[in-house]
Amino acid sequence: MTTVSIVNVTSYTGSELLRLIAQHPTFEVTSVTGRSTVGKRLEEIFPFLRAGVPISDGRRPAIDPTLVITEEPAQTDLAFVCLPHAAAAEAVVKLLQRGMKVIDLSADFRLHDVAVYEEWYKHTHPAPALLESAVYGLCEHYRQSIAAASLVANPGCHTTTSILALSPAVAAGIVKPDVIIDTKTGISGGGRSPSLIYHFPEADEDVSAYGLSGHRHMPEIAQELTASAIAGGHPFEQELRITFVPHLMPMTRGILATCYADLKQNGVEPLITTAEVRVLYEQYYKDEPFVHVIDQPPHTKWTYGSNHCFIYPIVDSRARRLIVVSCLDNLVKGAAGQAIQNANILYGLPEIAGLTSLAVHP
Amino acid sequence: MTTVSIVNVTSYTGSELLRLIAQHPTFEVTSVTGRSTVGKRLEEIFPFLRAGVPISDGRRPAIDPTLVITEEPAQTDLAFVCLPHAAAAEAVVKLLQRGMKVIDLSADFRLHDVAVYEEWYKHTHPAPALLESAVYGLCEHYRQSIAAASLVANPGCHTTTSILALSPAVAAGIVKPDVIIDTKTGISGGGRSPSLIYHFPEADEDVSAYGLSGHRHMPEIAQELTASAIAGGHPFEQELRITFVPHLMPMTRGILATCYADLKQNGVEPLITTAEVRVLYEQYYKDEPFVHVIDQPPHTKWTYGSNHCFIYPIVDSRARRLIVVSCLDNLVKGAAGQAIQNANILYGLPEIAGLTSLAVHP
Amino acid sequence: MTTVSIVNVTSYTGSELLRLIAQHPTFEVTSVTGRSTVGKRLEEIFPFLRAGVPISDGRRPAIDPTLVITEEPAQTDLAFVCLPHAAAAEAVVKLLQRGMKVIDLSADFRLHDVAVYEEWYKHTHPAPALLESAVYGLCEHYRQSIAAASLVANPGCHTTTSILALSPAVAAGIVKPDVIIDTKTGISGGGRSPSLIYHFPEADEDVSAYGLSGHRHMPEIAQELTASAIAGGHPFEQELRITFVPHLMPMTRGILATCYADLKQNGVEPLITTAEVRVLYEQYYKDEPFVHVIDQPPHTKWTYGSNHCFIYPIVDSRARRLIVVSCLDNLVKGAAGQAIQNANILYGLPEIAGLTSLAVHP
Amino acid sequence: MTTVSIVNVTSYTGSELLRLIAQHPTFEVTSVTGRSTVGKRLEEIFPFLRAGVPISDGRRPAIDPTLVITEEPAQTDLAFVCLPHAAAAEAVVKLLQRGMKVIDLSADFRLHDVAVYEEWYKHTHPAPALLESAVYGLCEHYRQSIAAASLVANPGCHTTTSILALSPAVAAGIVKPDVIIDTKTGISGGGRSPSLIYHFPEADEDVSAYGLSGHRHMPEIAQELTASAIAGGHPFEQELRITFVPHLMPMTRGILATCYADLKQNGVEPLITTAEVRVLYEQYYKDEPFVHVIDQPPHTKWTYGSNHCFIYPIVDSRARRLIVVSCLDNLVKGAAGQAIQNANILYGLPEIAGLTSLAVHP
Repeated sequence: MTTVSIVNVTSYTGSELLRLIAQHPTFEVTSVTGRSTVGKRLEEIFPFLRAGVPISDGRRPAIDPTLVITEEPAQTDLAFVCLPHAAAAEAVVKLLQRGMKVIDLSADFRLHDVAVYEEWYKHTHPAPALLESAVYGLCEHYRQSIAAASLVANPGCHTTTSILALSPAVAAGIVKPDVIIDTKTGISGGGRSPSLIYHFPEADEDVSAYGLSGHRHMPEIAQELTASAIAGGHPFEQELRITFVPHLMPMTRGILATCYADLKQNGVEPLITTAEVRVLYEQYYKDEPFVHVIDQPPHTKWTYGSNHCFIYPIVDSRARRLIVVSCLDNLVKGAAGQAIQNANILYGLPEIAGLTSLAVHP
Repeated sequence: MTTVSIVNVTSYTGSELLRLIAQHPTFEVTSVTGRSTVGKRLEEIFPFLRAGVPISDGRRPAIDPTLVITEEPAQTDLAFVCLPHAAAAEAVVKLLQRGMKVIDLSADFRLHDVAVYEEWYKHTHPAPALLESAVYGLCEHYRQSIAAASLVANPGCHTTTSILALSPAVAAGIVKPDVIIDTKTGISGGGRSPSLIYHFPEADEDVSAYGLSGHRHMPEIAQELTASAIAGGHPFEQELRITFVPHLMPMTRGILATCYADLKQNGVEPLITTAEVRVLYEQYYKDEPFVHVIDQPPHTKWTYGSNHCFIYPIVDSRARRLIVVSCLDNLVKGAAGQAIQNANILYGLPEIAGLTSLAVHP
Repeated sequence: MTTVSIVNVTSYTGSELLRLIAQHPTFEVTSVTGRSTVGKRLEEIFPFLRAGVPISDGRRPAIDPTLVITEEPAQTDLAFVCLPHAAAAEAVVKLLQRGMKVIDLSADFRLHDVAVYEEWYKHTHPAPALLESAVYGLCEHYRQSIAAASLVANPGCHTTTSILALSPAVAAGIVKPDVIIDTKTGISGGGRSPSLIYHFPEADEDVSAYGLSGHRHMPEIAQELTASAIAGGHPFEQELRITFVPHLMPMTRGILATCYADLKQNGVEPLITTAEVRVLYEQYYKDEPFVHVIDQPPHTKWTYGSNHCFIYPIVDSRARRLIVVSCLDNLVKGAAGQAIQNANILYGLPEIAGLTSLAVHP
Repeated sequence: MTTVSIVNVTSYTGSELLRLIAQHPTFEVTSVTGRSTVGKRLEEIFPFLRAGVPISDGRRPAIDPTLVITEEPAQTDLAFVCLPHAAAAEAVVKLLQRGMKVIDLSADFRLHDVAVYEEWYKHTHPAPALLESAVYGLCEHYRQSIAAASLVANPGCHTTTSILALSPAVAAGIVKPDVIIDTKTGISGGGRSPSLIYHFPEADEDVSAYGLSGHRHMPEIAQELTASAIAGGHPFEQELRITFVPHLMPMTRGILATCYADLKQNGVEPLITTAEVRVLYEQYYKDEPFVHVIDQPPHTKWTYGSNHCFIYPIVDSRARRLIVVSCLDNLVKGAAGQAIQNANILYGLPEIAGLTSLAVHP
């Protein structure tokens, strides 16, 4: 068994880790921390966990609902850090010093360039020295580095959805460095703290855009698409021009990215057809257990509660653009599920361990 | 024109009053107060009101979106008080002293018996002397008294729905004093202050009961059903035995009450048939512009944004029970719309003035 | 491995069985039938199943998304029948004749008395001879008989929720034979066939009651509560008087029952306190892996996608009534999950096999 | 009074016309037609209309809920045609021959070029001779022509939202003829006929893209943006390159368009700042009663049930793009409300007649 701490378990990424680890064959949560909830039992915060109480035939799930929330994590093999940025980095430093492996779900170690971090997050990075050794935890791209890492910077939902959608095209050099990403996200992505914008009567039956003057996930997407271009042997000839606009949807889970990229041309024709681009995508993801290239527009509900991602590429031949629609569950492949997948890689386990559930549909 | 103040306009009942008064032929909102928003313009709090800006052809709506929120209301003919209980009573006292008529949307003046109030609200009533002159603002029952009142205690959504559903049966003496009321309410009934229970990811796709150990609206329902029994010439022979359980629904607006009452019997048969009870109900409400007795189960969405109430009575002959299903929009007939209807009565206007909209359906 | 057929897989109970069996250690779906979809692959009907394609590390889920839908089921150890009533009975007869064990998710074999069936379902029972040997598949009550059965009549969601809520009280003899059951159900309970009442713009933001003139699940609830009373040694002294009103909620999954029963009295006091009734309920369900007695009103979302049921009993001492609120996922414990639990019992497996998932929350 | 027919009243645009005309000072609905519902009264199809029954004080709404649905419309001054394309054109021909004015809510007369129509709609146009005299009913652009028209081709929701968002920029010549339009629409836009994609359990908690291989509203948007460019004195130098992707949202009403256009440049800088573009937009719409340029991202819920449109333009200076977010209620300004506005223009009434309601918010 591998012992696991969840730091700031009272976040939605924290409770989602509990839910998933309850299905995991070898991980066991032995320590959970909180901030205003220290001293409470997990089941007091998350009553649905009472369903996990040890049962009469001797089997027990990996989550003990009576586990008491503490201020500091116990010594465990692995820690998942679910704190907001800045607070996360400070916690990570301490955990690494104690010899624990860390998967950080915040944004603190995702950007390689400290100057970019400080420009977008408007504060001094608490632990810049760790940026070099931190590995970006997009499993599909970095599994070898992840396997050897101490600190994994787990990507968020907007970035995972967007990068998985565009990387095959960028790596193959079929598009110009000019992309627009329009994401539609469920409200759980905004976290567990109540506020007017997430108050049911305001958010229900409502759609809106946000972050139009510049969203923090944009530089992360730019960093990784640029890396994909290089990895594919087709580095961008100009700096990537990227517009990213997230939208809030009246639903709890799910994120869908609609990505638009200018196709390179062969004379007046686009370089590639829909059929060809689909083959290219299928080839790129052929060995991936969680990424599925399909031939129809995907629905976020196909991923509800699961670690799967669906991708649908199509060529708009009139406008010579590539359109890629991708979707996943923002709390699973976009957060806690990918964190488990990273942990599986860290511990040499099959990547699907604990992540075999299909979507809850309908 | 009648000048109107809205005290605590930043509540949902406050903004709903704005929306409805914008359609009113003779009311004009000239003063709005708030607590943490003093100094702001209405349009800063409610951006959708910008659609009300005076327009080029000279017409203007009754709401000026640039109206500035103040701490104290200006002198106006009428004030709607949208404060929580206790705070409401204190404001009402001052407004009456200034010679203004008041429609109070809180619970402070709904109960006639100060002891019952203090038992359920757990604090000393701030203005018990006013209880005698306050008129319970259920228009269908008290329009004559309302017309002559200075202070109208506007009923809430659970009570309006339940009392309208059960009063005809109680007044006709066809049921025993033994009722169960199971209400299903939209989340806007919980107000505009964010909290975890109303946080979208928690409330969406969820149904739950609350207030099971005793809900404050229960004594109010008991008071009014007892009054209906007396008014109908069939006073209860025993104290009314009433169970009231509200439930929270994953929707913004609408409330539906399912009411169960033991029918008196004629030997082993129930006293009355479904057809007879429908005639009785139709007769009771035959002159009411906003209460509609129908022959099929009603839907809350039939009332979305309107001041209408639908009522469906049926006899469960196997169990010798009367079942009455009623529904309305909790923010309109259950709050602000009924308040306007009361104001129309106060000023001798047609009761439907400003309230002629049909439901927004679908 | 146990081979499994799903008859009429294109229903929601059918697809839910696929989802659950994909997590089951020993069941394998080798045959699926449909009606208008014969010849199609599962993944054409349910694209989200493509996420189940066999993956590179050799593991495969128990569901093959390329399985072709046939008209008749193949010979398998076990069949789940997801047909509507009447059609179900006809299929069951044939399957039993072929020596297969059958779990029928329709209503055809739930009522013991053929006359009651024919009164409520308005047609001649297609296989009355089987009624005697069919076992009512409420696992908590009949696991011994189920273990020995060839044909299990799997209960539906309204009945499971209601019976689990009221049986402990009925068995203990603390309530009179006079109950009201008010259920609130998600729309997936209405099945996968589109119709105006389930059309999104009609059902969204709407609550309504239905089946008020007599719902088919009522005699089933009456049958089982009467059995519970006898089993507990407190048979009803009069015929059970029961009112049952289901309501449609604007959500996909989940059902919540609010049950009201008159408590027997000890003089003018109710016979029992909330604390005592909770102990009684905890005792009744103490060995159950899926039924959890709790001390706060439960939320349907606590059960989303899981086989768990939460029950909250409370005494309304003013009205001398027992109120019990219970909830579960209508497609899992209220249909496919309970069917798997029954199948586990049939094959001598731990009841929780394949059913260990916690709710997807939020 | 102006007498009005509604052809195919059982559509959502039909019932929305009823709702709006009920508030109109001079329009009276005297004839309604249907297809499978001939012979029924309006209140049988739309029970919520029973709230419109004539009331005791002598006032009556403009809608009579007992009006009987006929196969053919009566002779009235004006007809609104709510039929699907092709069927609409056939009906329009007959109505014009009878001397009635017609507002057609279908797509049949929106495209000026019959060849483009036949390419996208895949059938021969039933009345090409009328294309020349039909006026495109975007009130903000064509009110003078509309005033003199016999036949108005009322635009749909995707097109209205998109054209209002982009026209000011196109007319001012600040953007290149290269745009991407990503719309998010509520499900009522798909009409009142049930189908699996709009079945509540499928559409709830789900987001998806559709029409990616080419959506019929695209040529209409292209036609009108090209016209705006010419009208503004900045005709496109190349053919407009346009990508349009609609998305389905889990909500009933509302549409939001996020429009992306390449800004012309002044050297390496974009030609214009956000502040300048906002002034340009405010100037463009300064006399419009229903179009509001605002300084924050708008929410679809700000338009629920109203005829208002909110527009938010912003410059993405990093990527040198103009982003414009606009929203409205798809059934009001995107269909029936705009049709009433067109009818007001036709009859020389104030444009806001019958359309003064604010949004129902929250």
